[in-house]
Amino acid sequence: MKVLIIGGGGVIGQKLARKLAARGTLRGRDIGKIVLADIVDPPQINAPFPVETRNCDISSRASVDQLIDADTDVVYLLAAIVSAHAEEDLDAGLNINMLGTLNVLDRCRALQTKPVVVFSSSIAVYGGEVPDPITDHSFLNPQTSYGTQKAIGELLLNDFSRRGLIDGRGFRLPTISVRPGKPNRAASSFMSSILREPLNGQEAVCPVAEDFEHYYLSPRRCVENLILGTEIEAEALGQNRCMMMPGRRWTIRQVIDAMTAVAGPKPATLIRWQDAPDIRRIVSGWRYDFAPQKALKLGLKADDSFEDNIRYYLEDDLGEKAARP
Amino acid sequence: MKVLIIGGGGVIGQKLARKLAARGTLRGRDIGKIVLADIVDPPQINAPFPVETRNCDISSRASVDQLIDADTDVVYLLAAIVSAHAEEDLDAGLNINMLGTLNVLDRCRALQTKPVVVFSSSIAVYGGEVPDPITDHSFLNPQTSYGTQKAIGELLLNDFSRRGLIDGRGFRLPTISVRPGKPNRAASSFMSSILREPLNGQEAVCPVAEDFEHYYLSPRRCVENLILGTEIEAEALGQNRCMMMPGRRWTIRQVIDAMTAVAGPKPATLIRWQDAPDIRRIVSGWRYDFAPQKALKLGLKADDSFEDNIRYYLEDDLGEKAARP
Repeated sequence: MKVLIIGGGGVIGQKLARKLAARGTLRGRDIGKIVLADIVDPPQINAPFPVETRNCDISSRASVDQLIDADTDVVYLLAAIVSAHAEEDLDAGLNINMLGTLNVLDRCRALQTKPVVVFSSSIAVYGGEVPDPITDHSFLNPQTSYGTQKAIGELLLNDFSRRGLIDGRGFRLPTISVRPGKPNRAASSFMSSILREPLNGQEAVCPVAEDFEHYYLSPRRCVENLILGTEIEAEALGQNRCMMMPGRRWTIRQVIDAMTAVAGPKPATLIRWQDAPDIRRIVSGWRYDFAPQKALKLGLKADDSFEDNIRYYLEDDLGEKAARP
Repeated sequence: MKVLIIGGGGVIGQKLARKLAARGTLRGRDIGKIVLADIVDPPQINAPFPVETRNCDISSRASVDQLIDADTDVVYLLAAIVSAHAEEDLDAGLNINMLGTLNVLDRCRALQTKPVVVFSSSIAVYGGEVPDPITDHSFLNPQTSYGTQKAIGELLLNDFSRRGLIDGRGFRLPTISVRPGKPNRAASSFMSSILREPLNGQEAVCPVAEDFEHYYLSPRRCVENLILGTEIEAEALGQNRCMMMPGRRWTIRQVIDAMTAVAGPKPATLIRWQDAPDIRRIVSGWRYDFAPQKALKLGLKADDSFEDNIRYYLEDDLGEKAARP
């Protein structure tokens, strides 16, 4: 089978590709080829089968048409501009996150091959006055343009699936930490950098107070969940193919304490505390109290402890040449 | 003030225009002009101020740009292709209902005048496995393309409002009955025609069983609610500017009995019962158990009884030259 990863140059795309290369199979079939696509040519990965790298701008329908062919069995749609970027530039967010998603789905529709499409949505679809805890049946009331555009992507994915044009499934990613690489324009970027930079002996800035609570998942577990989510039978997804991916809720203090428990007291001393109102305004609208029953029932898993998140970073990523953030 | 009604040729658009003409004021200001716009030139209405009729295709940004100018204070966005039509033709639904809404909102953004935008969403945004009753915090899981496109319009309206680009408010209309005019391509069309045609001495077909339950509102009350919704202060809307418009739940048997109570036994004898699986499949996915607390708190109202819906039709519409459906 042929697997396409759109956003294949990003952290999750690269880790997913390497995991698929190590597995060699997906949905009970041998993987014959992986295509990694991104806005700039993504880095190569090693695999026991051909891996092609491609350049694609999902905001261009022509570019998407050239990328996706009728041989493609599984499409991972991980490409997006991130939260702070989409907040700064509404047009870019609409063109890439919203119309880009429509371009990919509509290309799959035109092929009439009904590929499996795995869409990375986000915890940022939640917000507003919706009561805690957030369940599978809670209203999506995003308080950022990024969250709005992801929620629109979910609606399109569901409708195209309901119509039998694709076999879609969407997962709302918790904040991924510890993310390797460099800081990016996601408002959540600090939730990795306050750990990653100190673990590499560098200073980092924390823009919120230590009692700030949020909902986290490690990149390793995220990739495992995406693969598991690809393999779920369509019938098990019911009438809503999008769901929260399980994570765990921690305060900034708890994640720093986990780092200290695993790596000793030195890294925590490298964190500087400096309020950043723009970031705080975005992240304070995000939710952290979740009951992701559907995903748990389908077998998706959170990390067991934040110490695990730290260990996975040390095992998988420390010192590695950074993937494009 | 200048009021623009996009979809001004439709039943609700025409009734809204006539009601505004009779009131003469909106949001505490005198109405100086109404513009009625639709895909074909809408009929004129009588008013004590100028009423302009305009042709506009909202799926064309250029057409929208020509229509909406910086003098426009309030925009009613009522134009859409209806449920059965959007289900038959996905492209038309995406272009008109989704991208057409974006065109209108983005034109308002470009003007930098922050007009009030009143959007007619639909009960069809609800569906799926979401538990009853549907509350203000229930997940939108539309089971039609029409509902999907309306839910996307809501997300855009909220985001553009949150960003301060417009002052938006959206109302999910119950099924409007008794609708004057001719049957249209809405799957709910029969919910008016089984009353309207018999009240005019004509036969009508009922495609579902008499225990079929649904959620209804009269056109007269709908227009009153739209005007009230236009006048609500933005602050009172909170972080979600879209809400269910209150209606009432009735079985087909109850609405027919109401007709008989008001108009005597003859009309009910003109109903033919004939199963229509395509229609049944769409409408059976719709929801009817609602707790629209937010709208009720803001002063929006349902009809007092279905007898009222029948009386309003007899008073407002019987024998009237049909507006374009």
